[in-house]
Amino acid sequence: MAITVVGSVAFDSIETPAGRRERCLGGAATYFSLSASFFTDVRVIAVVGEDFGRRQEAVFQARNIDTRGLERASGKSFFWEGSYLEDINEAKTHNTELNVFAAFEPKIPAEYGDSEFLFLANIDPVLQRRVREAMPKVKLVAGDTMNYWINGHRPALLEVLKGLDILLINDTETRMLGDNRNLLQASRAVMQMGPKTLVVKHGEYGATLFHHTTPKGRGAELRAPGLPLEEVVDPTGAGDSFAGGFFGYLASQGDPTPAAYRKAMFYGSVMGSFACERFGTERLQQLTRQEIDQRFQLFRELTSLD
Amino acid sequence: MAITVVGSVAFDSIETPAGRRERCLGGAATYFSLSASFFTDVRVIAVVGEDFGRRQEAVFQARNIDTRGLERASGKSFFWEGSYLEDINEAKTHNTELNVFAAFEPKIPAEYGDSEFLFLANIDPVLQRRVREAMPKVKLVAGDTMNYWINGHRPALLEVLKGLDILLINDTETRMLGDNRNLLQASRAVMQMGPKTLVVKHGEYGATLFHHTTPKGRGAELRAPGLPLEEVVDPTGAGDSFAGGFFGYLASQGDPTPAAYRKAMFYGSVMGSFACERFGTERLQQLTRQEIDQRFQLFRELTSLD
Repeated sequence: MAITVVGSVAFDSIETPAGRRERCLGGAATYFSLSASFFTDVRVIAVVGEDFGRRQEAVFQARNIDTRGLERASGKSFFWEGSYLEDINEAKTHNTELNVFAAFEPKIPAEYGDSEFLFLANIDPVLQRRVREAMPKVKLVAGDTMNYWINGHRPALLEVLKGLDILLINDTETRMLGDNRNLLQASRAVMQMGPKTLVVKHGEYGATLFHHTTPKGRGAELRAPGLPLEEVVDPTGAGDSFAGGFFGYLASQGDPTPAAYRKAMFYGSVMGSFACERFGTERLQQLTRQEIDQRFQLFRELTSLD
Repeated sequence: MAITVVGSVAFDSIETPAGRRERCLGGAATYFSLSASFFTDVRVIAVVGEDFGRRQEAVFQARNIDTRGLERASGKSFFWEGSYLEDINEAKTHNTELNVFAAFEPKIPAEYGDSEFLFLANIDPVLQRRVREAMPKVKLVAGDTMNYWINGHRPALLEVLKGLDILLINDTETRMLGDNRNLLQASRAVMQMGPKTLVVKHGEYGATLFHHTTPKGRGAELRAPGLPLEEVVDPTGAGDSFAGGFFGYLASQGDPTPAAYRKAMFYGSVMGSFACERFGTERLQQLTRQEIDQRFQLFRELTSLD
């Protein structure tokens, strides 16, 4: 089933111990779309500037991603500059230019109306809510957010959370949003805000699946591992790629069962691990479904007791 | 098969968000022994002072741990005072008094001579090496170390590593010892120093098993998860309890197979999770084998795809 995703399509200048890249294609919606496109049809809603040309468009087209919701505005695309020099797990932001994103008003193409899955990538919760309300027919809604919205735009974010089935955030965001230093207790508090399912991403250590019906003594539903990589070239977009693999697999299953959620966690980890192997979206652009399945098998062996 | 362990038996004063305890029984050899005693016979080598009385001795006896190698010296036992107030995952040391430990000369009782498994807990590598050499008949040797020895006593530590089959350390220690920020590459460098097997402990995120024959594309042999706990009361000794569960289970299997190593990783995580549930060794003292097996099953479900 098709996923509509709303979020940022951007240019990133990135420096890591492996090198530096200027203005490579990035943005949460880009990573999510590329990743999810290996599993199901993806339709993207975003705004780009005049610097977004045929080369960038071709990246989406090569993966059959529907770009009719990609609005062209006069001005420059969203731009982010950051580095991971001291700690490969932590981005240091040097510059953020919202550019055309500052006045972004998501418009949903009529052709997207029958999407059954909706992903609200990390943008202003006011926009997330607007898109959610404009697509009342969707069956399953997942979303992401970040510290900035949790701290400074809590009321708007809480409105979004009420309409989410699944929230995907990291450890720090979970503790902050749930206002509890204990991850398990924080996760329960977050699930009382709306999402029945919470995926907490642990960076290189994988991710944990919480569900509101998980019995108290159990802790969590599933913990998917991270894969120790030969070289983490660039962790930018790993979380969005995780979300794309997770939600893309779920959408491919139609009516997701508990077993599908478990597999989705592993596909999320698989896609996150690939994203880190090259700069920007380079690895996702060159990936094959066969490589994905091979790595899925590797993740299975990495956790299998028998 | 029996394990002999050499390390510290100590008193700890601990403060965590859950409260404070004064001078509770602690030390790496204590946590390791209690944890391993649920799987196999354990024999301890350590030195204690006059403050170590019948009550402390009874904790070992209740678990049938052989204390004939527990030397009594005049003076006070090793004492550590620390807190986990800002970050539950990171101990802040307020005071360390070596006391009788300063002049510790490990003596191995004749009755320990037929031990087939040896664990060198985190102490001066000069002492670790001496014990290793005094027990040439052991079949499998595992050990632990810490930043202090890696940074300041590297030549002595390298001598110990040559005689180790298994090293259990954490992420930071692995990167420091292997002199590489990439965990996978650091782990390979460490395994070239002697230990064919490396267990890297990730605190709340579990642990990873590396083996020198693991193919390059694979990354690691196994990643065991951590268990999200309702309350982390006191993380002191969690790593030593992990080691006790891991090595205790291996010893219980006689000639450990690759499958036994995988199960041992999970038993390690199980024992580490219990250790955090109460202050000091309280939880390990009250634990039953049935509780261990139940939690092992829970860990299995936490990682099972099917």
